[in-house]
Amino acid sequence: MIVILKENVSKQKVDSLAKSFEQMGLTIHYSEGTHTTIMGLVGDTSQVDMDAVCANDIVAAVKRISEPYKAVNRRFHPQDTHIPVGGHNIGEGNFCVIAGPCSVESEEQIICVAEEIKKSGAQLLRGGAFKPRTSPYSFQGLEANGLRFLLEAKAATGLPIVTEIMSEMHIDLFADVDVIQVGARNMQNFQLLKELGHSKKPVLLKRGLSSTVEEFLMSAEYILAGGNPNVILCERGIRTFETAIRNTPDLTAIALIKHNSHLPVIFDPSHATGVPWLVEPLSRAAIAIGADGVMIEVHNNPACALCDGAQSLNFDQFSSTMASIKKRVAAEGKRMA
Amino acid sequence: MIVILKENVSKQKVDSLAKSFEQMGLTIHYSEGTHTTIMGLVGDTSQVDMDAVCANDIVAAVKRISEPYKAVNRRFHPQDTHIPVGGHNIGEGNFCVIAGPCSVESEEQIICVAEEIKKSGAQLLRGGAFKPRTSPYSFQGLEANGLRFLLEAKAATGLPIVTEIMSEMHIDLFADVDVIQVGARNMQNFQLLKELGHSKKPVLLKRGLSSTVEEFLMSAEYILAGGNPNVILCERGIRTFETAIRNTPDLTAIALIKHNSHLPVIFDPSHATGVPWLVEPLSRAAIAIGADGVMIEVHNNPACALCDGAQSLNFDQFSSTMASIKKRVAAEGKRMA
Amino acid sequence: MIVILKENVSKQKVDSLAKSFEQMGLTIHYSEGTHTTIMGLVGDTSQVDMDAVCANDIVAAVKRISEPYKAVNRRFHPQDTHIPVGGHNIGEGNFCVIAGPCSVESEEQIICVAEEIKKSGAQLLRGGAFKPRTSPYSFQGLEANGLRFLLEAKAATGLPIVTEIMSEMHIDLFADVDVIQVGARNMQNFQLLKELGHSKKPVLLKRGLSSTVEEFLMSAEYILAGGNPNVILCERGIRTFETAIRNTPDLTAIALIKHNSHLPVIFDPSHATGVPWLVEPLSRAAIAIGADGVMIEVHNNPACALCDGAQSLNFDQFSSTMASIKKRVAAEGKRMA
Amino acid sequence: MIVILKENVSKQKVDSLAKSFEQMGLTIHYSEGTHTTIMGLVGDTSQVDMDAVCANDIVAAVKRISEPYKAVNRRFHPQDTHIPVGGHNIGEGNFCVIAGPCSVESEEQIICVAEEIKKSGAQLLRGGAFKPRTSPYSFQGLEANGLRFLLEAKAATGLPIVTEIMSEMHIDLFADVDVIQVGARNMQNFQLLKELGHSKKPVLLKRGLSSTVEEFLMSAEYILAGGNPNVILCERGIRTFETAIRNTPDLTAIALIKHNSHLPVIFDPSHATGVPWLVEPLSRAAIAIGADGVMIEVHNNPACALCDGAQSLNFDQFSSTMASIKKRVAAEGKRMA
Repeated sequence: MIVILKENVSKQKVDSLAKSFEQMGLTIHYSEGTHTTIMGLVGDTSQVDMDAVCANDIVAAVKRISEPYKAVNRRFHPQDTHIPVGGHNIGEGNFCVIAGPCSVESEEQIICVAEEIKKSGAQLLRGGAFKPRTSPYSFQGLEANGLRFLLEAKAATGLPIVTEIMSEMHIDLFADVDVIQVGARNMQNFQLLKELGHSKKPVLLKRGLSSTVEEFLMSAEYILAGGNPNVILCERGIRTFETAIRNTPDLTAIALIKHNSHLPVIFDPSHATGVPWLVEPLSRAAIAIGADGVMIEVHNNPACALCDGAQSLNFDQFSSTMASIKKRVAAEGKRMA
Repeated sequence: MIVILKENVSKQKVDSLAKSFEQMGLTIHYSEGTHTTIMGLVGDTSQVDMDAVCANDIVAAVKRISEPYKAVNRRFHPQDTHIPVGGHNIGEGNFCVIAGPCSVESEEQIICVAEEIKKSGAQLLRGGAFKPRTSPYSFQGLEANGLRFLLEAKAATGLPIVTEIMSEMHIDLFADVDVIQVGARNMQNFQLLKELGHSKKPVLLKRGLSSTVEEFLMSAEYILAGGNPNVILCERGIRTFETAIRNTPDLTAIALIKHNSHLPVIFDPSHATGVPWLVEPLSRAAIAIGADGVMIEVHNNPACALCDGAQSLNFDQFSSTMASIKKRVAAEGKRMA
Repeated sequence: MIVILKENVSKQKVDSLAKSFEQMGLTIHYSEGTHTTIMGLVGDTSQVDMDAVCANDIVAAVKRISEPYKAVNRRFHPQDTHIPVGGHNIGEGNFCVIAGPCSVESEEQIICVAEEIKKSGAQLLRGGAFKPRTSPYSFQGLEANGLRFLLEAKAATGLPIVTEIMSEMHIDLFADVDVIQVGARNMQNFQLLKELGHSKKPVLLKRGLSSTVEEFLMSAEYILAGGNPNVILCERGIRTFETAIRNTPDLTAIALIKHNSHLPVIFDPSHATGVPWLVEPLSRAAIAIGADGVMIEVHNNPACALCDGAQSLNFDQFSSTMASIKKRVAAEGKRMA
Repeated sequence: MIVILKENVSKQKVDSLAKSFEQMGLTIHYSEGTHTTIMGLVGDTSQVDMDAVCANDIVAAVKRISEPYKAVNRRFHPQDTHIPVGGHNIGEGNFCVIAGPCSVESEEQIICVAEEIKKSGAQLLRGGAFKPRTSPYSFQGLEANGLRFLLEAKAATGLPIVTEIMSEMHIDLFADVDVIQVGARNMQNFQLLKELGHSKKPVLLKRGLSSTVEEFLMSAEYILAGGNPNVILCERGIRTFETAIRNTPDLTAIALIKHNSHLPVIFDPSHATGVPWLVEPLSRAAIAIGADGVMIEVHNNPACALCDGAQSLNFDQFSSTMASIKKRVAAEGKRMA
């Protein structure tokens, strides 16, 4: 971190600032120019609050040279991380497909969807039991019953399950869930992240609607810093000015994250676009840019789905999407997880 | 709500769709054009999921005519709501100033700040005990001790206190807090909103970084729908492409919310800009556009603040800002809360 | 400008980079830390291309300390600039109101509007003759005839006129226009800016839909650098994720520009919102935050306007808005231009 | 287009509105509900100004059902368009690579780059002679000399050339240029688009920084409506809140445009990211999602480039990127143009 001081500041104030850095265990290198003094901070600067430094009235500017994240940083962990989930390995050259309905609606429905997606080659089953909905009047999910139906579907098909948590008060309910999903709206629910850091259970962390890649990695850092190394990141589109589709998929984020972090990254073309026919071309692009998997909404009857039906594939659409995915994964020299 | 059907759809499918609306208690008016049939839904359409309707393969488009929120809607509650807080009334022509440090740092600090802001005319004291920080390595707040110190400051000065909650698991800790703040990053933490809806305690709800005004009102609707009418909305800047300052203050949102809702709306120029000298001109503009108050960061020693010091006013700056605020509030024909 | 070099770079490459800076007339101060060398560039760094410096393989990072603009910079020109227009002075404590229809539609129409807005107290008449329209099938303006009708309205009322130019090929047609407007979509039409820099005629430069304040000032810099000091800046809303109204007014930009530049800044609440009832509250806020004027769309019959009628005020609405404006301008201790 | 009327409006006003639609040659179908009347407009509604209709005081809402563009619409021209350029065909299953420096710097430089990119398999040479630069103090291009050097490079290598126009006053200078580029900042310079519509020369139209896909297609519509069918669209990243890289590439826009329009679409990974190592993975993703080509910046010595050097590939990087591109193009069953 480089701290650029204002011109003609008192030595006493500089010493006082320096002392506060030294108390954090940092070493300071001074660079005295004709007009300006620059302090180079060496050591673990991830704890330094840039805003607080800026507020010091002798400071002209601060520039961070190294990333503020450590545990998720590829610099300190060059190998890809892979996350074992129910016999599959996510990451490290394996491509996984997570599929299922937006919401669990009944035991029959979720078992039926699970069987169909398994037949087409998906490795994990997704389905919402607790649903974050913009409106309090919209269907909020079957909650504990939904979790129970998911576990029935797992028992029936052997597919590990992924489902979203909405409160740290519910963690015990998720004991038999294979992967706990943190939704985009909770990406900076730091208390929830801290609680999940105390678990060892794989966490699927979705990027916030307007989170930068750095903030996204910092949220993953919360979980790893708490002691849980099993984080799968999920790009799901960001919010921009464009209104043609629901969100703007940020596929470049996948390449940036793979470059800066060792964690696996998957892509959710269903939520990112809200448009069924875009799921297949965007899955192709995600494979090409290096994603470790995709998460796709599939429904037995999209037109009757209780939520987000408009973006779900039916079984035939999913089956042909899977054929396309398998072909491209092979062409990229990867294997299905 | 208007549902525009595709051309040449089967009567059977139309009847099936109609039945699903009727089961929600809605009445349907058909408008048959030469090529197109349009269904007009009359009744409480706030429960209709537009996405789910769009997913129906006979539907060409859906347009919502009325707002999806009810309890917060001025249409059904034309009078301004005012929220009583410790002898003050927030809203309804009263202008309130909430001031204090980003974080509570010690008992002495918070009492000192409380005394100073009271002297300058602030009505409420703010201070963070639980701090949402992008980095797990940044100061996370004094937590329960911070709450205790705030209550000491309240006892010393009589100022009601506003402080942020980060988890529904902490609600009991907030029993003596006057106004519970929900931060921008938790605006769509729906489980937390639901729990706060079961309380009667005033809630200060901050707008999410990239939330639309409609989504903001829908989050307030969660709290009112749960039974708690005491919600104060807070505009705190949105995230855009502009990097000159931390966020882009959306003052127009204040006018839009006052128009569409009866709830009081305040503005936070400190977080919205991150720049101390902008606090005063933006407070002027907020008063002019109809805000019911402002929330301003004030610190005994901004250069040493443990978080967000860069955006805090010192006591002199706050005192002169208060003088400017009082003058403009009077000029607008309002009174201090 | 601070150039932070990578670790362990060859002296030869550093010398070569230094030489390229010296050839631009810059002086270099070296700051040698234990690991890092930092070059501080002193002199006129506005000509240094940061991207090009970054591309050098010995450079780790570049940070600009001073603004890249000079002629528009308040640092080198502390006094407010005022622009004389037809007997009025724009800027320097004078508040101007520019009003008129989106498009000139006929001689009768524009004279009628001019007379009405003059009666209510507007200082300048606006009206589009050349219209930038998203669709080639929309009304494109009366072009040369429109300019002629504007001049008739000026002759009839004495109001100076403001109208938009869409091509440097039309400059001769604008010889009798008082203020030439450059629209948001042409803010970075650099060839047009250069041509206007060769004139002395006042230019009203509108901010681009997604331009930063710095880019906006750099576009003004083009005109001043060409020799024309008469630039009036106009904030007209930016494009964000919010869809409640047409654009998101960025009132803070007015405060930032007044702080960083000596040029007058006005605000266009009509285009910024597209909503007639927001024109008055936003004008109030613009006055409060320090704008030097507003530009308001007024139409004799908004419901029949050939373009943008939806955002125009009728005569009564304009008259009451003017009353509100005059009151606030007086309360701020300013005078109408 | 659907026009939803307010409740209880006078028959006279409805008739008057209806008449104005009939005068545009539209047929109206009425749909009378219990409370609401809806007008369905049939015919060429691309000329209807939605804002103007909204402004009518009997109108509650307007919804466009069909796209506002015609000539570029795939609905009326289902086959892919291909554009012949100097022996190559752009579009229709052919994948083209346009490469070259940001700026032409000298005759030697551009010939050297042209020879190298030809060797690696690029089909067209790009290079800027007129440069749109944010700062008036940055290098503005060699202008007419730059065009001359490009033509020398074309003579030396046989590669057709693509270069940017910045003013309709320069069109004659571009007589021997193969493809005229319109930059992102001029995407809504409508006068320039109109002039290019009167030519038959291929136009490479870049998407504006914050233009929607619909606006982008409307700008292409200007050129086609003027009589020039030879338009190649170019996605080059949009402006969002994310600051990790220069722009946010919107690869989904490629899929949307291919779906809605018959025009060829290419992608510019160099400007979209500003980061050399991202050029190859983003080219892979662009191929996967259906782009008809890529435009890549290549420089003989990126560290010394006069502009945008930081984003240019050197010859070795370009050569290995071309190898990757050719492999993926073949895997997708396409051929190099």
